[in-house]
Amino acid sequence: MPPSHNDFLQRAVALALDNVGAGGGPFGALIVRDGQVIAEGVNRVTQVNDPTAHAEIVAIREACRALNRFQLDNCAIYASCEPCPMCLGAIYWARLGAVYFAATREDAASAGFDDSLIYSEMPLDPGERKIAMRRVALPGSTAPFLAWARHAGRIPY
Amino acid sequence: MPPSHNDFLQRAVALALDNVGAGGGPFGALIVRDGQVIAEGVNRVTQVNDPTAHAEIVAIREACRALNRFQLDNCAIYASCEPCPMCLGAIYWARLGAVYFAATREDAASAGFDDSLIYSEMPLDPGERKIAMRRVALPGSTAPFLAWARHAGRIPY
Repeated sequence: MPPSHNDFLQRAVALALDNVGAGGGPFGALIVRDGQVIAEGVNRVTQVNDPTAHAEIVAIREACRALNRFQLDNCAIYASCEPCPMCLGAIYWARLGAVYFAATREDAASAGFDDSLIYSEMPLDPGERKIAMRRVALPGSTAPFLAWARHAGRIPY
Repeated sequence: MPPSHNDFLQRAVALALDNVGAGGGPFGALIVRDGQVIAEGVNRVTQVNDPTAHAEIVAIREACRALNRFQLDNCAIYASCEPCPMCLGAIYWARLGAVYFAATREDAASAGFDDSLIYSEMPLDPGERKIAMRRVALPGSTAPFLAWARHAGRIPY
């Protein structure tokens, strides 16, 4: 019998649990294609000094490296916990086909993680957020987009 | 006279413009602390097969490497365009002090980028999003968080 969604999620949770013992954050993720695990990731933020090294992003980067491509359509991601907004954004950019998760953003919040807070900041206008954000209108700010539109060799992503 | 917000943003836009000629996406970003540029980043998604290699994330990772830490409080980020949800999430996790940007998410959408679409997906319930997302309730899914709470050597992030 091929592995089920539950099997892959159990593996993601086991990775998360092991990672706590290894000094990392309590999160794990897998990328799966056609029933095969392409890549695994665990949270490595504090070990490698990279605030973007969440389990899902580590797994996405590793899967792209393994498959030698920058999109992961036809792949699913299994995460021990509901992805935070950063990882959710990465899931869209990677064009993943499906997302399965076990614990929720509320579970993460109870454990002291900011996922829920960041979700609540997303829909706000930049000026209303907890981190000061400001648009500065600048002549020429769309020049890179115009150059992109004109660039025959551009690779859309 | 020290460099102004406009000067840093003009540099970010110049990086974005140059990056189109180099075969990358039309985005650039800087991390600045005390008026000094700590790191620069450009979009390298298609060149390095990494869907997370947006200008802001490249700059954040590089600044953390340069400063040997996983948070960037006391730093500001200057981005040629309003950060997408993935990069906005990274900005929160990095605890950046301030964000300045020139072009808007609507400018990015006009140029064919999905920022606006992803923003609109964020507040939806997982089951309502364009990418299939499903929570699977799993016994033990909060075990990693319980282990984290008990782990005396944990490093909060």
